[in-house]
Amino acid sequence: MTRQSDERHMRHAMSLAARGLGRTWPNPAVGCVIVKDHRVVGRGWTQPGGRPHAEAMALAQAGETARGATAYVTLEPCSHYGKTPPCSEALIAAGLSRVVVALGDPDPRVNGRGFAKLQEAGIVVTTGVLEAEARAQQAGFLSKVTLGRPMVTLKLAMSWDGRIATATGESQWITGPLARRRVHAMRATHDAVLVGGGTARADDPNLTVRGLGVSHQPVRVVMSRRLDLPLTGHLARTAQEIPVWIIHGPEVDDALKSAWRGLGVDLIEASVIAGNINPKSAFDALGARGLTRVFCEGGGALAASLLSADLVDRVALFTAGLAIGAEGRPGLGALGLDRLSAAIRYQLESVEQLGPDTLSQWRRGPALDDGPNA
Amino acid sequence: MTRQSDERHMRHAMSLAARGLGRTWPNPAVGCVIVKDHRVVGRGWTQPGGRPHAEAMALAQAGETARGATAYVTLEPCSHYGKTPPCSEALIAAGLSRVVVALGDPDPRVNGRGFAKLQEAGIVVTTGVLEAEARAQQAGFLSKVTLGRPMVTLKLAMSWDGRIATATGESQWITGPLARRRVHAMRATHDAVLVGGGTARADDPNLTVRGLGVSHQPVRVVMSRRLDLPLTGHLARTAQEIPVWIIHGPEVDDALKSAWRGLGVDLIEASVIAGNINPKSAFDALGARGLTRVFCEGGGALAASLLSADLVDRVALFTAGLAIGAEGRPGLGALGLDRLSAAIRYQLESVEQLGPDTLSQWRRGPALDDGPNA
Repeated sequence: MTRQSDERHMRHAMSLAARGLGRTWPNPAVGCVIVKDHRVVGRGWTQPGGRPHAEAMALAQAGETARGATAYVTLEPCSHYGKTPPCSEALIAAGLSRVVVALGDPDPRVNGRGFAKLQEAGIVVTTGVLEAEARAQQAGFLSKVTLGRPMVTLKLAMSWDGRIATATGESQWITGPLARRRVHAMRATHDAVLVGGGTARADDPNLTVRGLGVSHQPVRVVMSRRLDLPLTGHLARTAQEIPVWIIHGPEVDDALKSAWRGLGVDLIEASVIAGNINPKSAFDALGARGLTRVFCEGGGALAASLLSADLVDRVALFTAGLAIGAEGRPGLGALGLDRLSAAIRYQLESVEQLGPDTLSQWRRGPALDDGPNA
Repeated sequence: MTRQSDERHMRHAMSLAARGLGRTWPNPAVGCVIVKDHRVVGRGWTQPGGRPHAEAMALAQAGETARGATAYVTLEPCSHYGKTPPCSEALIAAGLSRVVVALGDPDPRVNGRGFAKLQEAGIVVTTGVLEAEARAQQAGFLSKVTLGRPMVTLKLAMSWDGRIATATGESQWITGPLARRRVHAMRATHDAVLVGGGTARADDPNLTVRGLGVSHQPVRVVMSRRLDLPLTGHLARTAQEIPVWIIHGPEVDDALKSAWRGLGVDLIEASVIAGNINPKSAFDALGARGLTRVFCEGGGALAASLLSADLVDRVALFTAGLAIGAEGRPGLGALGLDRLSAAIRYQLESVEQLGPDTLSQWRRGPALDDGPNA
């Protein structure tokens, strides 16, 4: 096979993997394509909940045809016995002659052992095909495995001048329907949607994915140090159907906790720093529970605390075509930045038009080093 | 000729017209292409200072070949005797058989008379070819003729959250070199660059076009109610070479005015409203002096006063990949907006990546009417 056709099949596998984003935690969303004589004979992707794995699904589809075929897998096949037998053994048993992989799995239970097992069985292993793209796709899983916390995408939806409401708090419909639809699509590709307690109180949001024909719903997470959220809000009322997790501080009354638990809400205690929940401790707790991708929708205080703690990996900035003015409510709280050089620079990934609004997407990157020129 | 080839030649004429933007005031920047037997035999555009006109330049190039040819002109040929004989007469004298025009000239001295003269002479006249595009290109001239004030483009260059500096005022290099280069290119296509007195004091800017091989420089305009700008700054020191106009309020000491005039600065008195220069009166004065396109680069107070007065026609929003936080200095002052529905919605024209930054361009448009969807 040429490098070009390897990349083409891997791209196919990555498009299958993408179907699992937001649905496979605590497992990675993997894609697999099995090719024999230039024909695709099996396609698989990690199923909701994380099982079956992509390889098992593709092998089942290929059946006997898999013998002597090539498998394209977006992440190193697992080598350890978990709730299912390891995929590396399944690939060997099926008689594959070659396995092409985009990216190694840093999970200490895998971490090269998947490759080794395949090679020991005489299978030709090619690695690093579309590795950078796969790394971006696996950012959530990699973050959980290597940093112990989920990848965090911060959504900001603001006027030109970074406001989200007038001084009196009026905030509805700053961005248009296409932007709001895209927000729902972004929710669907994350394991959880996160808001601060102030937003939960002020907006009484549902935080569900709507209007996209999607059955899966992300976990809804609220950070509320005092657990002082309305027990009759949308989140409280629907916690039995769609998970709600509330991250609170240590000093919360037991009766209040019982009331929330009685509604089916999962409570997570985190430490407090400078009067607020320590976001690092909160994300460590979310990582320990298996979350790989978290979509934070504000409010401004929570967004600022995540940015200050350098816990934001990606930013989705929606900008509407209006100014609200300096007396309006800022979409981002104080960051405590005294020098510009201390600000974290993000790299621009893409920018597009969404009806009347723009969407730019940014990724945490190294500081820019551009000199004076104006 | 088909509509398609008409549009192709008109697009050519518009690309020639664009060369004059920022250089032809008080005249419009017009382009002209003369076509005979499917060949372009003459090309012209309004020359710096507004003369010769595009038609005269194209006719001179075509010479005798113009007889029986078709002329494509982006704006109705003038019909009145000014400093040069009218273009409509020149086209008739040259023996053109057809004239295609994008847009009528609303100048009361023309306003259809150009078309009438051509038709009376037996020339076939086609109008409205690429009219919308020509209207956008002529926005400055049309604004001056119909509203008596120049078109205003507002530049904003901010962090995600609409800030331009830290709390301590540190503001250098928020956007990168490509964005700054684009700002210089935008200056070059405007008749004048405008800043408020606070920006002139704080930044001591040059406001010139640099690094683009452009010889022409826009007029530099400062709004300063009290005329309290440093007499030793960049603008003051270079006013002899590149025009500086200062718009001030009525209560300014005569000696101070004399000092500025002695430096070669042109002083314009405007009325005051609520303690600041009335921007409407300022722009009326600029329009009366012939300016058609003004590029406002802030600061935040001036930008807000122009937006509040609904005097901003276009917005160029540069966004850098960082957050500065709510304690940072806002790029836009207070607008006095109490309801979101009172905010002016702008239409998105384009959005692009400029190295590490984004540039979105917006145009004053009717209010959006999109219903709830989230």
